[in-house]
Amino acid sequence: MPSLKPSPLAPKRFPTLAPVHGVRLATTAAGIRYVGRTDLLLAVMPEGTAVGGVVTTSKSASAPVKWCQSGIKQGRARALVVNSGNSNTFTGKRGVATVRATAATAAALVGCRPDEVFVASTGVIGEPPDSTKITKALPGLFAALEPGAWRTAAEAIRTTDTFAKAAGATARIGNARVNIAGIAKGSGMIAPNMATMLSFVFTDAAIPPKALQRMVAAMADRTFNAITVDSDTSTSDTVLVFATGAVRHPRVASAAAPLLADFRAKLEGVMRDLAHQIVRDGEGAQKFIAVTVSGATDDVSARRIGMTIANSPLVKTAIAGGDPNWGRVVMAVGKAGEPANIAKLSIAMGGRPIARKGEIVKGYSDAKVARYLKGREVAIEVDVAVGRGRATVWTCDLTHGYIDINASYKT
Amino acid sequence: MPSLKPSPLAPKRFPTLAPVHGVRLATTAAGIRYVGRTDLLLAVMPEGTAVGGVVTTSKSASAPVKWCQSGIKQGRARALVVNSGNSNTFTGKRGVATVRATAATAAALVGCRPDEVFVASTGVIGEPPDSTKITKALPGLFAALEPGAWRTAAEAIRTTDTFAKAAGATARIGNARVNIAGIAKGSGMIAPNMATMLSFVFTDAAIPPKALQRMVAAMADRTFNAITVDSDTSTSDTVLVFATGAVRHPRVASAAAPLLADFRAKLEGVMRDLAHQIVRDGEGAQKFIAVTVSGATDDVSARRIGMTIANSPLVKTAIAGGDPNWGRVVMAVGKAGEPANIAKLSIAMGGRPIARKGEIVKGYSDAKVARYLKGREVAIEVDVAVGRGRATVWTCDLTHGYIDINASYKT
Repeated sequence: MPSLKPSPLAPKRFPTLAPVHGVRLATTAAGIRYVGRTDLLLAVMPEGTAVGGVVTTSKSASAPVKWCQSGIKQGRARALVVNSGNSNTFTGKRGVATVRATAATAAALVGCRPDEVFVASTGVIGEPPDSTKITKALPGLFAALEPGAWRTAAEAIRTTDTFAKAAGATARIGNARVNIAGIAKGSGMIAPNMATMLSFVFTDAAIPPKALQRMVAAMADRTFNAITVDSDTSTSDTVLVFATGAVRHPRVASAAAPLLADFRAKLEGVMRDLAHQIVRDGEGAQKFIAVTVSGATDDVSARRIGMTIANSPLVKTAIAGGDPNWGRVVMAVGKAGEPANIAKLSIAMGGRPIARKGEIVKGYSDAKVARYLKGREVAIEVDVAVGRGRATVWTCDLTHGYIDINASYKT
Repeated sequence: MPSLKPSPLAPKRFPTLAPVHGVRLATTAAGIRYVGRTDLLLAVMPEGTAVGGVVTTSKSASAPVKWCQSGIKQGRARALVVNSGNSNTFTGKRGVATVRATAATAAALVGCRPDEVFVASTGVIGEPPDSTKITKALPGLFAALEPGAWRTAAEAIRTTDTFAKAAGATARIGNARVNIAGIAKGSGMIAPNMATMLSFVFTDAAIPPKALQRMVAAMADRTFNAITVDSDTSTSDTVLVFATGAVRHPRVASAAAPLLADFRAKLEGVMRDLAHQIVRDGEGAQKFIAVTVSGATDDVSARRIGMTIANSPLVKTAIAGGDPNWGRVVMAVGKAGEPANIAKLSIAMGGRPIARKGEIVKGYSDAKVARYLKGREVAIEVDVAVGRGRATVWTCDLTHGYIDINASYKT
């Protein structure tokens, strides 16, 4: 595996995060795949903590993903155990047994039901994990729990990520201030030797499980489900949002409550920030690309067209080469299979018009757009002229670095 | 654009093709994009020639593709005009006018209806072509028509193809022998600066248009629609099969007629051979990969799963690196969204078992499979354990060459 320098698109520094009341964290090096590398995280939350989440739609979802699916349904959480190094995917009954042993051990320490323990694993596929490495480490972790250890938590879940990812915000609910802090990992929809994207967000707001789930599902569609590095869907993708309720504020009735306006904006902002950081750490990424599609039949259709553009290897290599090859955008819109009026199509890059209403604009110059494409941040704007649907998705370019990272690893 | 050496997967030599009675060909350098490069092909067929074909499903299909769609419906053909250098895609009314002028000029020379003239174009997207370059060249081409000029025809339709592609066969229909000869171009579902895959197959058998169309559509699904280089769907993909009927043989009643058994096998063989040659010329290809999926609910589902594996950049880069990273095959099966029993999944490479019924096989060795992956030809075999559907699809690996070719071209 090539040594990985921090991505040129990484944020300047790790953010300063406010403490989230009720959340305590601890990490250790449990030797799950490598010796001496922090690879296990335990987070413990107070009684009454609500959880909302979304997981991969893959049919080969990992054992931990299937475990989390039922946990999300019941809506309550007390602990989160995350390991890196082994994804516990395609591991049969032994994989299921490992998740059960992990949850049972953590539940005994915390004093909760096993289904209130959430488990997430990333790493190699198809190698049954040694559950004792996790269960033996948990008592020590439990004894070492402390609030605010965001940086070590973000480090512990890293695999081939080139930087630790975190984001936070403070929101107002009524007169109360609540904090939000989140961490994430991922360097591709599948990272090179370590399957996947994970993200865990914590808040001390008091949000009922159903309301939380509704918000998280909708926001995930606009954030984590609106990014792509290489179009490959991971077996372990997991996003969980925990609300401890440790801060007192007026009671929240539903996800749509006006009371939550600021909280919703801030939570989605944290999720978007974390999603962007995953793209910024995309394998081999040299440019951060935002694709905005307007004029679609609806927002879902706009997102599908956007994802088709963002997943096109020909669009991604063109951006990598700084080549204003907008014909490839026309191609990608065409292959999306969604309603679009090609005869009225408009395309721009970074606000520079290229085609308008189905025709190249007068005086269009490749050179001007090529200059714009020299930057680290690229915006592609497409209007498909059939309706009012709109969406933005994010991706990175496809470079030699992607091949370097992925053409050699396991052996 | 980097200079392109012949693909290491290219056939040893251009095939010897038998003449197809009734077909005459001519080529020239019409200066469509480059000066002094053969870029225009005219083929003329006798009265009564039947045509069957399939074209791209892209919503941004080129003007020539839309023209061919109506020609295929009426089922009769007298001429084919193919240019390379400009795909005549996203070119609005001027593009449509170019196709009409081309067909009208050729029809006047041949003495047929314009809708019996088929037009195909590949090349850059979004630049309205200069129709006079084509119409002015047609009379000279018509005067120069000759039988059997397969090699120059295959050269004329090349763009960034690293080798000229052709295949042929002789089949028996009753006591008669009929010939089949085909040419193709393509180096990606979209070639680098020249959108697309084209293939034209000619036979002197007498096949009624409906029967021909039925055969070609079914065979295209198992050949040209079963290959992928980079998952990007072209705006110009066109496959046309012309049957001149110049050879006398017992009358053919339908596509399924027992009389056609040998002809069907040979025609599909030619189409498969041409499809494979396109994969063998895939951008940057170093390995030819056959993915066979069995145990699917039906053949269509098997092909979808196969294409998901064949389109996965992580599977393709693993093969490029000779890395037996079969976990990525598990991932790809999972993301296909088709019925599959992951707990009973079996995977092999080149007949070497890796996983059987949901578990890694005893004594499995990465090293043994890694040795196999050093070869130029790689077979991936997957059984998804839910039914009897089966399909094979073909692709190539994803290498630095793909990035080299595609990250710089237009400017």
